[in-house]
Amino acid sequence: MARVYNFSAGPATLPLEVLQEAQAEFVDFKGTGMSLIEASHRGKAYDAVHEEAVANISKLAGLTDDYAVAFMTGGASQQFAQIPMNLLGENDTADHVNTGAWTKKAIAEAKLQRSIKVIADVSKESPLRMPREDEFKVNKDAVYLHLCSNETIAGTQLKKFPKVDVPIVADMSSDMFSRPFDIRQFGAIYAGAQKNMGPAGVTIVIMRKDLAARVSEKVPKIFRYTTHIENNSLYNTPPTFSIYIVMLVTRWIMKNGGLAGIEKMNAAKAAKIYDAIDASSFYRSPVANDSRSFMNITFRLPSEELEAQFVAEAKKLKMDGLKGHRDVGGIRASIYNAFPMEGIDALVQFMTDFEKKNG
Amino acid sequence: MARVYNFSAGPATLPLEVLQEAQAEFVDFKGTGMSLIEASHRGKAYDAVHEEAVANISKLAGLTDDYAVAFMTGGASQQFAQIPMNLLGENDTADHVNTGAWTKKAIAEAKLQRSIKVIADVSKESPLRMPREDEFKVNKDAVYLHLCSNETIAGTQLKKFPKVDVPIVADMSSDMFSRPFDIRQFGAIYAGAQKNMGPAGVTIVIMRKDLAARVSEKVPKIFRYTTHIENNSLYNTPPTFSIYIVMLVTRWIMKNGGLAGIEKMNAAKAAKIYDAIDASSFYRSPVANDSRSFMNITFRLPSEELEAQFVAEAKKLKMDGLKGHRDVGGIRASIYNAFPMEGIDALVQFMTDFEKKNG
Repeated sequence: MARVYNFSAGPATLPLEVLQEAQAEFVDFKGTGMSLIEASHRGKAYDAVHEEAVANISKLAGLTDDYAVAFMTGGASQQFAQIPMNLLGENDTADHVNTGAWTKKAIAEAKLQRSIKVIADVSKESPLRMPREDEFKVNKDAVYLHLCSNETIAGTQLKKFPKVDVPIVADMSSDMFSRPFDIRQFGAIYAGAQKNMGPAGVTIVIMRKDLAARVSEKVPKIFRYTTHIENNSLYNTPPTFSIYIVMLVTRWIMKNGGLAGIEKMNAAKAAKIYDAIDASSFYRSPVANDSRSFMNITFRLPSEELEAQFVAEAKKLKMDGLKGHRDVGGIRASIYNAFPMEGIDALVQFMTDFEKKNG
Repeated sequence: MARVYNFSAGPATLPLEVLQEAQAEFVDFKGTGMSLIEASHRGKAYDAVHEEAVANISKLAGLTDDYAVAFMTGGASQQFAQIPMNLLGENDTADHVNTGAWTKKAIAEAKLQRSIKVIADVSKESPLRMPREDEFKVNKDAVYLHLCSNETIAGTQLKKFPKVDVPIVADMSSDMFSRPFDIRQFGAIYAGAQKNMGPAGVTIVIMRKDLAARVSEKVPKIFRYTTHIENNSLYNTPPTFSIYIVMLVTRWIMKNGGLAGIEKMNAAKAAKIYDAIDASSFYRSPVANDSRSFMNITFRLPSEELEAQFVAEAKKLKMDGLKGHRDVGGIRASIYNAFPMEGIDALVQFMTDFEKKNG
């Protein structure tokens, strides 16, 4: 098989060994005589998968008893609506920070329901950047501060979470489990699995139980975090196959040094590409140095024509998905946890060759 | 491989040829050099899968242009909340029919939001049954009539949908695409895929566009059917792998004679088990003749001890998942579309043998 280097922003590259293991046991799961996708979500075979996924996530995130893990669906987009629906009573408010496309959607969904405040907005700055520590001026009456740790489209990443007096609720869709973090800063973390942790179809939510308990009884039962927490994510049939792959990927992360080990790999991978950009006057990063994402590396070429040519030629060399998001253009190399170093080297070599020919 | 006969109520047996095809192309999807679970939901490879899934569902359901298909998540349980949230304005009402555990949940979620009416309740009748045509007395001001076509736990099935003056909204989770139906009777149909159509993780919704358009602008965007319909279920990242399996299963249904062909197979399978029950004084059906489900066949033995023994001995003979739902006890044989005739024959033979030994 000629495996391509998949730079897609998500769904994205997963560890080859995980794919091979899932393939080997796809029709007959561990001698049960059935596929895992045919297995009851309340049976023994799936139960072991589910419990290991919860245990791995709890361990990686360093959860204490006051936090719970829930497997939900609808991606981060559904969390944008569900967080205020659950955590904010009729007269409650929360603070939001606007850092780009995703936080904008989160703000819009929250505003449909409650009166929230945008305390910082860097979404239109150039170069692109994340807010500085002193820009997080939270209001005393805010139940939480909502932010996005990594803007997938812009290619910006918050390198250090601010010390604030309210719990942080973080959309970590594109960098969860790519680096260590201190769970005690957070009231909640959520992420669609399809970047660093698995396939599309499951959203991982970690939440402080006392925040989940704020929900009003008027909220539909299925939309309450408490429902999913109390039922260990088995209130309704969960997306069993997606959770199974998440289990295998979290197992792979633990085998690769846990979050500290993964961060080291991710930093090394990103550095190679940023170094290539900085060493050239042909390539240009639109992102300020201190806000450069290790996950989604965005850069520009001298013209849109050259960018299109770059994407097309890379594709012939088995480098797929390098086209920037349609809203911003340019090039985007998404290099999540499982993206291999050889693919980074191939891209850097290609960048050098392409500049020589067209620079 | 020793494939078991999987009588689980869902997730459930899928066609072996579908599993084998998915396994073969799991690591390298059609020569793309990546797994489908790694592929962008906006790329060519996944796009072909998505479009065929929509086309197959539209064809099987006989959809005209006034209906749309949407792939959603959260199972039927989420639809219980989302239907009233979208279709009912503040002063609107709808009629519900209570036929068992699932409709009860739908009623509770609807009541949290709107003032709806329960126009018929057969949930506590014995023998268990579905309402007769004359019991569906809909109110003139009802926006829709909500019902469940097949109660998975009770083992009851509505054999003929009532002719009423309002559109029917049907929870078809456990019998969608198991038999033909006239779409013009319905305002909406929804079903978690994990019984007759695929794995857990995707909910198939078919809705009349004019009903979807009733939604208020106060409803979070992610929860509006219009959002998903207008974006062809790509507003957020859809559960791509689950939709892929649904595509393969709908292709398999079409190859097997479409809904008419599948219904014939299902009727023949169910008849063998009901005949075995009726021919015996040892086994007893708790369901009235005219309401017997072709999908979930529930029956009782003379004692709970014998029922436990029956389940245990069947398991040794590779017949799995025969234990009735924990809320009602007894035996339940769930025999969805893909459940093979040989499994039915094995069960009937076992029933005969077990009665001889213990009757």
